Parts: sequence; C-alpha cells; structure tokens
Amino acid sequence: MTRMLDVQGYNPRTGAPVGPAVAASTAEEVDRAANAAAATFPVWSGLPAQRRAEVLDALADALDATAGELVAVADAETALGETRLRNEVGRTTGQLRMFADLLRRGRHVEAIISPADPAAGRPDVRRMLHPIGPVAVFSASNFPMAFSVAGGDTASALAAGCPVVVKAHEGHPQTSVLVARTLGQALAGAGLPTEILGLVHGFDAGGALVRHPAVRAVGFTGSLRGGRALADLAAARPDPIPFYGELGSVNPVVVLPGAARTRATEIAAEYAGSLTLGAGQFCTNPGLLFVPDDADLLAALADAVRSTSAGPMLSKRMRDSYVDVTARMAGDALHPLAEGAAADGAWAVAPQVWRLDLATFAARVDTLTEEVFGPAGLVVSYSTVDDLLPVLSRLDGSLTGSVHAADDEPDAAAAVGAALRPLVGRLIYNGWPTGVAVCWAMHHGGPWPASTSALHTSVGGTALRRWQVPVAYQGWPQDLLPAELRDDNPLGIPRTVQD
Amino acid sequence: MTRMLDVQGYNPRTGAPVGPAVAASTAEEVDRAANAAAATFPVWSGLPAQRRAEVLDALADALDATAGELVAVADAETALGETRLRNEVGRTTGQLRMFADLLRRGRHVEAIISPADPAAGRPDVRRMLHPIGPVAVFSASNFPMAFSVAGGDTASALAAGCPVVVKAHEGHPQTSVLVARTLGQALAGAGLPTEILGLVHGFDAGGALVRHPAVRAVGFTGSLRGGRALADLAAARPDPIPFYGELGSVNPVVVLPGAARTRATEIAAEYAGSLTLGAGQFCTNPGLLFVPDDADLLAALADAVRSTSAGPMLSKRMRDSYVDVTARMAGDALHPLAEGAAADGAWAVAPQVWRLDLATFAARVDTLTEEVFGPAGLVVSYSTVDDLLPVLSRLDGSLTGSVHAADDEPDAAAAVGAALRPLVGRLIYNGWPTGVAVCWAMHHGGPWPASTSALHTSVGGTALRRWQVPVAYQGWPQDLLPAELRDDNPLGIPRTVQD
Repeated sequence: MTRMLDVQGYNPRTGAPVGPAVAASTAEEVDRAANAAAATFPVWSGLPAQRRAEVLDALADALDATAGELVAVADAETALGETRLRNEVGRTTGQLRMFADLLRRGRHVEAIISPADPAAGRPDVRRMLHPIGPVAVFSASNFPMAFSVAGGDTASALAAGCPVVVKAHEGHPQTSVLVARTLGQALAGAGLPTEILGLVHGFDAGGALVRHPAVRAVGFTGSLRGGRALADLAAARPDPIPFYGELGSVNPVVVLPGAARTRATEIAAEYAGSLTLGAGQFCTNPGLLFVPDDADLLAALADAVRSTSAGPMLSKRMRDSYVDVTARMAGDALHPLAEGAAADGAWAVAPQVWRLDLATFAARVDTLTEEVFGPAGLVVSYSTVDDLLPVLSRLDGSLTGSVHAADDEPDAAAAVGAALRPLVGRLIYNGWPTGVAVCWAMHHGGPWPASTSALHTSVGGTALRRWQVPVAYQGWPQDLLPAELRDDNPLGIPRTVQD
Repeated sequence: MTRMLDVQGYNPRTGAPVGPAVAASTAEEVDRAANAAAATFPVWSGLPAQRRAEVLDALADALDATAGELVAVADAETALGETRLRNEVGRTTGQLRMFADLLRRGRHVEAIISPADPAAGRPDVRRMLHPIGPVAVFSASNFPMAFSVAGGDTASALAAGCPVVVKAHEGHPQTSVLVARTLGQALAGAGLPTEILGLVHGFDAGGALVRHPAVRAVGFTGSLRGGRALADLAAARPDPIPFYGELGSVNPVVVLPGAARTRATEIAAEYAGSLTLGAGQFCTNPGLLFVPDDADLLAALADAVRSTSAGPMLSKRMRDSYVDVTARMAGDALHPLAEGAAADGAWAVAPQVWRLDLATFAARVDTLTEEVFGPAGLVVSYSTVDDLLPVLSRLDGSLTGSVHAADDEPDAAAAVGAALRPLVGRLIYNGWPTGVAVCWAMHHGGPWPASTSALHTSVGGTALRRWQVPVAYQGWPQDLLPAELRDDNPLGIPRTVQD
C-alpha cells in the first residue's frame, strides 16, 4: 500500500511548517472510518434526544476548556489572530449548545399528525423526522473552528443523530487533530464510542468518503471547483446521496442615494472593515458594492480603503491566487479606486478596490462577478435606481444581498430588496454581510453557485433537516409508536395536528 | 425544423389508437413553454396566498365539472375503469383543495423569527419560504389524473407559487391535453395567464425541459431508468437543480406468526387484492411478502391468488415487459405458488406469485428485489422472526414497509418495524401499501431507489417544500418586511419565535 502525500500545515506569518506533517489517510483508513461511524449509528441515533443534547453540551464544554490551546494552534496555522479565534471558539460551542437546546425542546422532530378519518376512508398517519445515517463533512479553510471539525455541519449532523466523518482541511491539520481529539475524549467520557466522530486527511480521502457506501449525505464548505467535483461524485454514485455545498458568493451591497447623502463616512468605514475583515477570507465578503455616482461617497470610500491593512492569507496558494487575480483585474483596464496596505506576514496582501460605472459593469457582468477570495472589491457607480435594477437581476446567486437606505427612501429600498431577493439567501438592511448570527431563523445558502441546494441551510435552526428523513407511521397502535407521535405526547414537543 | 415522432395513445382493451396523435413538442416549443412559464412567475408568485388558494379551488372545481369527460377519455387510454378513475379525479381535486387549505392557514410559510439580542450582538433575523421558480413536472403512466398534469407535483408547485410545465406521459396524451385545457380555461377565467401551466409532449421534450435555464426544479414519477437519466441531466447542468424523482419500490410486507394464525384467510384475500389492484401497476404494489412457514396461510394465499384476475396493462410495452420478466422468473427455478387469470383485453396479463424459502431468497436477494411492474409477487417463508430480521436489513429502499401482527406479539412487531424503518418512507401496521392517503402527515418517498431524495415527499402537506427556498431577512424595518414576518402578524399565520 503506497502512502499518499502527508498533510503539512504552515504558518502564514512566516511560511514555516507548523508541527509535524499528518499522514494522509489511505483508502483503507477512509473505509475503516466510514464503517466505524456506520457501526455507531444505531447507538448514537438510538439515544433519546435529551441525552444527545447532554452530549452536545459536553462537547461544547470540552472545546471551551481547551480554548487556549485551540486558539494557539489555530493561530499558528491560520494567522487569524487570537481575538477572532477566541470568538470563533465561542461561536462553535454556542452552535453546539443551540442544537442541544433545539433537541431538548423537540424542535428537530417536525411531528405532523393526521388522525384517522373513517368517513373519508383515511387511516391514522403520523410523520416525524429520523436521522439519515453517517454524514461526511468537509472542513473549510477560513473557519478552523466554526466550519471545520466541530463546525455547523458536524454539530447539526450530530444533533440529528448522525455519526460524522470529517475530511480535515489541508490548511489546519494540527487544529483539526486537536479538535477531533478533544471531542473524542468528551464522547468517551460520556461512555460513547469515539467513532461517532471520525477524521480523515488528504485530497484523495475526500473523494473516497463521498463515494463510500456507508455515507448517506455530505456537507461541504469550500471552493466552487472543489465543491462541484465532489457534488458530481455524489450525484454519480449508484445510489446518489444529497450533497450540501456552499461554494462561492459575491454578496452584492447597494447603497441608495439617501444613505449615501446622510451616512457617507460611516458607510465607507463599515465597507472597508467588512471587506478586509479576516483578510477578506469570508464567503460573505462584500465583493460588489453599488453606489450612487456621488463624489463625496466615492472619496470617503477611497479614504477608508487606503486606511486598511490586511493580514496574511491562509495559504501560499490563496495568496498567489489573490495576487494573480488582482493583477489580471488591474491589467483588465479597471480603474483603481484605492489600495490598502499589506500587514506584516509572509502571505499578507494589500486590499484592492476598483471602480467602474454601471454601463461598463453591465457590459462585462459575466466576467466581473466571479468571487475573488481575499480583500478585493468592485465599486460600481450608478446614476439612478431605475438604471440599477435590471443589472442587479443579472447577477448570479449569492449568500447575501444588502441594501443601505435612509428612512425617506422606502420605495427604493423595497425595489432593490425585491430585485435582490430571488438571488440571495439572506437579505440585509443597513448592515453588512460578514458575520452570520447563529440563531433559529438564520439561513446561510442561496441560489447556485452560493450553494448546491438553495432549499437548505448550513447555519441556523433548520440546518439539521439536511440530515433527517421523514417517516410516516400508518395505523400503528399507541404503545408501538415512537414517543414523539403518541397521543399523550410524553415528551411535550411541538406538533402539528390536522383538524 | 424536423418534427419529432408524434405521440399516439392506445386503448389497452383493444390495442386500437385513441383519438388523433398529438404532435411531439419541438425544441423551440419547449423553449417557448418554459420561457412563457417563467414570464408568469412574478404574477403567480406575487399573488397573496389567499388568492392562490381561490385559484386552486377553481382548478379543482373545473376538473370536477369535467369529470365525466375526463373519466371517459382516461378510461379509453388506460383501461383503469370508471370507478377507479372517478375516485382518482376526486383524489386529484381533493389534493388541490388540501393545498388551498394549507395556503389559507399560512402553513406553507414556515416563518421563524429570531428577535434581535443586542446583548449577544445578534441582529433581528426573520426567515420564511419563497417559491423557487418555474418547475418541470413529469407525468406518470399509472395515474392519469393524480400523478399527471393536475397531480400532486403540479398541485404542490402551483400552491408554492411556481408556474409549471408538464411533460405529458406518452400513454395518455388525450387525457393530458384535456386536463391542461380544463386548467387553462380555469386560469383564464380567474383572469390569469394560461402559461402558468404549460404542457409539452414527447421523449425529447423531457430532456430539453430538464436542461432549460428557466426551469428551477423537477418533479418526476416513473421508471428507475428514465428517472435516473433525467436526474443525471439535472445534476450535470451548469447550475444543477433539484430533481425529485420517485423511481421504484418493492414494498416489503411481513406477516408475523400470530397474525398468520388468527387472520390467514383475511390476510390472503387482502394481499391478493392489493397485489392485483389496477393490474398491479402501483408504485406501492406489495411485491415482496414474508410469511411464517405456515401451511394454512400458504394454502390460503394460493387460493386467493388463483381467484384473482387482472385487467389490461397500460401499454403494450408494459405488457410485453411483464410477460418477459415473469417468464424469466419462471425459468429461474422459482417455485410457482399460484397464478390468477388474465381478464379480457388486448394487454391483460395473469397475476403470478412465486414462493421460496428465506435461505434461498437471502442467497439471491440482489437479483430478486427489482420492482416488477404488474401483478407479480414473491412470497418468502421464514421459520423465525430472528432469522428474518437480518435479511430484511439487506433490502433496498422502498416507499413502504408493512407489518401484520396480532395483539399478543408486540415485541416481534416492534423488531420488524425497527428493521424496516430505515429502508422505507412509510411504515404500515396491519394494512397494505396500496392507497396513499392525501393528508398533512403523509410521506411518499424513501431511500434510493424509492426516491431520489429521501428527504422530500411527493404526497402530503410538506410536498410543497420541494418548490420553496428559505430567505432570511436581517434588520429590515417593519413596514418593509413581508406581511408574513411582521410583528403584528396581519395574516395570522403559525410562526416559530425564538425565545
């Protein structure tokens, strides 16, 4: 058996290796991890929801207790900084606790009861959701905690009752190993098999995982190219499985004339902050800003961008790609609006913003709307909102769309909202797309290429539905029904009853 | 432009053509129908739900008013008989009215509200479902009403606010044209564009529809081969779209020893009835019956099957296929249990049931569990429930699984239910799989190959979710929010509020 290439993490500040290389998983190891996860499915899915909630809380506690070490390792591998990474640990454990809370309330069951109607010849039918089976999760580069080993896909799948095998991101192998070890110890401490959460490494392991017969669904956050390749693998299986990928997004933001007039400086500062946060390495980065042709606002934007500096990008490959793409844009006769500074660090890059008018943008909309990973943005100036609306409708799908409006322009805000709504999964008013609140109502997804399934979300209370299948029980006697569906509702969960 | 082959319906009783041939749609016609449907999307989706409900009721009324003519044409093209077809019209219009009722109650919105939590830095986030866009629906052969032009996929998509283009089934073109005309007149009568419901014909039109850029999702009921080919087309688009296909199912039924002892004659008669209903042309046909090795029950089953007769199958191709497959099974050293009679009619076939023991079945489970379309069944006899359980777990996914139990064998019923549950979408107790009640809690789907998405259903109150996408509104002022999400809940719809 030949060993595949090992996985080595690097420090984006120095370019030096972080810790030892992690061995890429062999095909046999992937097979073993998937089968071991499948073997735990009856145990994990068979626990009462209250007990699964306790375990999720224990996983959160274990991560919180390891936060210092986690932040140090993740910072070495990603250079995202201690403040951001501390917050990200909190977000990750908060997410686990939110799902635990939803389990305790029975909000994951979606029970619907249609009592028998003998007059209409209708039998008693009761529907609830059950876990789908083992889930494969692909970690993202840009969230070493919140979209990685213990991230939203893992948390929601575990909450649903599904064991998980994570394919670690190559960018932070040591962080991944540490998170997996922490979770494994917490599972063992709860008297459960550690194989409920498996971890594999390396490019080839990813494809093997998607093709593995025991895997019943896939969650993915990453690039359009990688995601599409894996989605195609999932669709081409003898038994196709659902693939939930979040792939790419330019996140249009529209500033209306009244907002520009009354809040130019504030908007400019917020834009520059959102664009360069985390070196622009967010799927919700505001890549496309539409502004009125207003000299004051454009000047304020240029000033704000010039005052930014961006830290190192996550990998040399990403840095090189950013440099290539921005050089191509510069060579592409785009007019620079402003440039920020590159902070210290081997892979640091300078924020870059170009400016063009609406007509020029409209003529080149297909080539100018691909996501640029990093702190680069286009500012498109328009004359009137009426000119802008048809151009907005030509944009590809995005995770978010935002409108900045003054109180006295509700019609324009409504019109821009209506134009953006079919293109996005989240519609923001007087706010910025970066920062995805983990709450019941959040939706993080959108039309292709934002996500592979516009119907489902990777963040929020309904994220666990991706890992659940409905089952209808017809004619079952009370004492053989799952507790969730019995007339006496012993768990006290919310249910819909047909009347 | 060359014309493709026309579509000709035939009378299964005589083999003679029914009415004139219908022209197969050209690529241009498919393009026009899809674009015309897309053009109606703002109008149809923009109607208040109450108004869409009125229109659905009007569609149901129009079909009821045309029932006599519909039944006559459908009977000529399918030979399913007047009683069954009258019931099917009622089921179809009942389904439209059920969705109208759900719209009036606001049960299609799935509103979730997470109020702002300034202490946690959380903005106000409010989520609801919106229609996805134009939907392509593929009619089934075996339900000329309930799974065809006005069937469940169309009804749920229209309810969701999506225009529909139906690809008519080749087996009943005249019925399809009549239903589409009836619905078109009702839409026009409601002052709406008739292109909200388009109709195309012919094999090539189907592929063109799935590939069409304006089509945002597909509903399909039909064969495994045809469904897989179209699902692959949907997944291979530049922008993959969801494909909801219901493809094939053997619907295992387990008779427990106590039930066999106390209800042998009744079970045998019900089995023979369910197996041969509609000439066995149901996706819920009980193709696989597991019984204890009980001589009385086996004799009763043989008697019951011998007393059946099956009407003509829907098409010559289906009849020929049934004859081929059953001949192969007979030549395959299967032991015949009993044979029924072929009723009158050109394409009538004889019900056929084979018997084998559990060990033989277990050794050949992969080849013996493909769906046979028509009134053919396998009866597998087992010695003990403990022997049976591991064999059940090796079955492919099905739409349904059923258990027949006496009151004094709850443990065995629970064990068989637990073994079948992961394999099926509906679990039936002391009942038969044929007959799918249209009610809020119904689920009609199951693991591959029963359906392409085990997560979604083609029947029941949640069927319209297939055609809806979530959108989260962040930070929007009250007067710019959709009515469904405003604090005062002016529509009085059910909503979930995070506390």
